[in-house]
Amino acid sequence: MASTKQIALLGSTGSIGRQTLDVIDSFPDHFRVVALACQRSVEAVVAQARRYRPKLVAVAEAEAAGRAAEALRGSGIEVAAGIDGVTRCAVHPEADLVVAAAVGVAGLPPVWEAVRAGRTIALANKEPLVVAGHLITAEAARSGARLLPVDSEHSAIFQSLLGQAREAVARVVLTASGGAFRDLPQEELERVTPEQALAHPTWKMGEKVTVDSATLMNKGLELIEARWLFDLSPEMLDVVLHRESIVHSLVEFADGAVIAHLARPDMRLPIQFALSYPERLSRPEPPPDLASIGALHFEPFDGERWPCVGLAREAMAVGGTAPAALNAADEVAVAWFLDGRIPFTAIPRIIARALEAHEAGPGDSVEALLAAGAEVREFLERTQTA
Amino acid sequence: MASTKQIALLGSTGSIGRQTLDVIDSFPDHFRVVALACQRSVEAVVAQARRYRPKLVAVAEAEAAGRAAEALRGSGIEVAAGIDGVTRCAVHPEADLVVAAAVGVAGLPPVWEAVRAGRTIALANKEPLVVAGHLITAEAARSGARLLPVDSEHSAIFQSLLGQAREAVARVVLTASGGAFRDLPQEELERVTPEQALAHPTWKMGEKVTVDSATLMNKGLELIEARWLFDLSPEMLDVVLHRESIVHSLVEFADGAVIAHLARPDMRLPIQFALSYPERLSRPEPPPDLASIGALHFEPFDGERWPCVGLAREAMAVGGTAPAALNAADEVAVAWFLDGRIPFTAIPRIIARALEAHEAGPGDSVEALLAAGAEVREFLERTQTA
Repeated sequence: MASTKQIALLGSTGSIGRQTLDVIDSFPDHFRVVALACQRSVEAVVAQARRYRPKLVAVAEAEAAGRAAEALRGSGIEVAAGIDGVTRCAVHPEADLVVAAAVGVAGLPPVWEAVRAGRTIALANKEPLVVAGHLITAEAARSGARLLPVDSEHSAIFQSLLGQAREAVARVVLTASGGAFRDLPQEELERVTPEQALAHPTWKMGEKVTVDSATLMNKGLELIEARWLFDLSPEMLDVVLHRESIVHSLVEFADGAVIAHLARPDMRLPIQFALSYPERLSRPEPPPDLASIGALHFEPFDGERWPCVGLAREAMAVGGTAPAALNAADEVAVAWFLDGRIPFTAIPRIIARALEAHEAGPGDSVEALLAAGAEVREFLERTQTA
Repeated sequence: MASTKQIALLGSTGSIGRQTLDVIDSFPDHFRVVALACQRSVEAVVAQARRYRPKLVAVAEAEAAGRAAEALRGSGIEVAAGIDGVTRCAVHPEADLVVAAAVGVAGLPPVWEAVRAGRTIALANKEPLVVAGHLITAEAARSGARLLPVDSEHSAIFQSLLGQAREAVARVVLTASGGAFRDLPQEELERVTPEQALAHPTWKMGEKVTVDSATLMNKGLELIEARWLFDLSPEMLDVVLHRESIVHSLVEFADGAVIAHLARPDMRLPIQFALSYPERLSRPEPPPDLASIGALHFEPFDGERWPCVGLAREAMAVGGTAPAALNAADEVAVAWFLDGRIPFTAIPRIIARALEAHEAGPGDSVEALLAAGAEVREFLERTQTA
C-alpha cells in the first residue's frame, strides 16, 4: 500500500468539497485531511474539523472565522481567518495534495500561491484557469507545480491522454449533457425559472455551475480550461451534445483513432482519480453497463441556441483580461438570474454587452486580472437597468 | 522524421497483406518492404515483388515457388520455397518488424521462429496465439520478442492500455458487430448460404474470418488471443454486441473508469498503428463523427444463439491442446460449410463434437499443438457422414 496522502481541501463545505470528504472516507488508509478551508459556513466546517482533525482550518470571512475559532477552542485545531488563512491552507507544509474546490474567482489567489510554491493541485475550481490560465501554466512550468483536473470532462481528457503520442492529438471533444433546458423549445427559454434551471438532468452540482450548465456557459469555460490544462490551441477544441453523460470526452488522433473516457455521472469518480493518481483505487459501484444502457446518443452542438459557448470562444481568442471579463460578467448575470432580476435569456446578452465594453489588456498579473473582473462587475451594476 | 522501418510481410497476397501494402504506399519514407511471403498466389506475389523490390520472396507451396522463381529470374530478388522459405522471411536479418498476416494455423511455425529470435511482430494471424499462446508468451518473455496486435479489437485494447495502471484493469470488453446474421431469426440460420455468410455488414475481410464473424467464433478466438496478448484471466474478458463497429473495445478499471477506443471500421487503421507504433502517422480520413452518426448501440451478447463463443471459452479454460483442437475443428467446419457440405448451424455442433472427443494434453511444444490439430482434422474426416 502507498503511504497516506495528506490533503489540504479548499472549499470543504461546498458540493465538491463534501464529495471529496466522502471519497476520503472510503479510503482512510490512503488519505488524511491536514487542512480545511471554506468561505463562511461555520457550522459545517466546525463539524468537519471535529471529525477529520486537521491541523489548520481557515474561514475566509473574518466574522465567521471568529465564530469557528470560538467553537474549536481547546480542540488543538488552529483556526485562521481571511484569504491569508485560506492561502496558508493552500501551501500547508504537510500537504501532499491541495484540492482546490472553492467556487468562483475567489479561489484564484490561494491557487496562485500553491502554483508559485510548486504544489500538486487537484483543480475543481474552474475560475483560476479560466481567468489566469496563461499566468498559471507559465508559473507552473517554472515552479514545477502539477495540475490534476477534477472536472469530469478534464479528468476524462487527462485519463485519455495518458501514455499517448501527444504530438498526434488532432482534436479534443468535450461532451455536454445539454443542461436543464436541452429539450425546451427556444421560445420558452425566456420564461424559465431559477428552480427549473437548477434541476440538472444528469449531474448533481452547485448552483452556479448548474445554471452555467443550463446556459452551456459551463462548456465554454471548460474549453478555456482545457486549452490551458492540455496546451491545446482553441481550434483543436470542440463540443458535442451527449445526453446520457456517460462519455465524458473524446480525444481524436491524427491517425483516425479516438480514445474516449466513459464513467457514470458521479463527481466522486474524477475526484477520486485526482486524489489517487497515478494509482486507481477500487470502488464498489461497477462502471456503466452499455448493454443495459442500450444506446449512447450524440448531437451536433447548436451555437445559435446557446450563445455562451461562442462568447467564451471569443474571450479565449482575445486572451489577456478578456476571459476574466467573461467570467465576471457571467458571475453577475447568473446571480441576477437566481435573484429573479433578469430572465434566463438575458444572461448571454449581459455577458456580450460586458465583453463589448471591456478593453482587454494583457492581464500579466493576478492583480490585473482581478481588477479587470471588478471593473466589469462595477460596469454592469452601473449600467444595468432592470 | 524517424528512420525507415524495414518490413517483412507474411501473407502478402491475402486481405490483410494487401491492406498492409496499401498503408506502406501511403508512407514511402517511413516503411520499406524487405521480404514478402505467401502461400501460393504466384501472379500476385510476383507483381508485388516487381513493385516493392524486396530482398527475399517466399512461396510456401513448392510448385508455385518454382513458377515465382522463374518469373523473377534476373530481377535480383531471391525466391525461397516452402515453410522454411517463409520462416527465412519471418527472421530476415534486415527486418525491423515482421507483419504476420497469413491465414490459419499454417502461420504458426514462422511466427514461432520470429518469437524465438526476439523479433517485433505485428500479429494479424489469429491462430498462433489461439493455438500456442502459452508457449509464445513464455518464449517472448525469454527472447524479448514484442507482439503488436493488428486485429481491430486487440489494437483497440492495446491503445486503451497505454500509460494506464495495469493492476487496476477490472474487465476488458470486446465489441462484436454481430456478423452477417445478427438480425436473422434463429430458425432461418439453418438455411443460410455461404454467399450470405460472406456478406459482412461492417468489415471487409477474408473468407474464413468472415464466416467466423457470422458464427461469432471470431469473437471466441479473439477472447483467447486477448487473454495472451494482455495477460488477462478468462473471467476478465467479455463481449458486447455493437452493430456500428465504431467502438472496438472497452477497458474497465477498478475505479469505475472506462477507456474506449473508437475508429472507423477500416483494417488499415490498426495495421498502420502496428506499423508506426509508438508514433501515430496522419491519415487523410477523419475519425468517426459521432454527431452525424447519432447513436452508438450496445446489446447483451446471447450465448445460446451463438454457441461458438462458449465453445471457445471452454477450450480456453481447459488450455493445453484444447484451443488447438477448437481451432482445427473450426477450420474444418467452416471449409465444409463453404463447400456446401454442411448447414451453417452444424458448425458449432461439429466443433462441440470434436472438443468432446479430444483428450487434451499439455501441448508443451509447437509440434504437439500442430499434431493435436491434425488429429482433430483426421477424426472429423473419419467420423463425419454428410
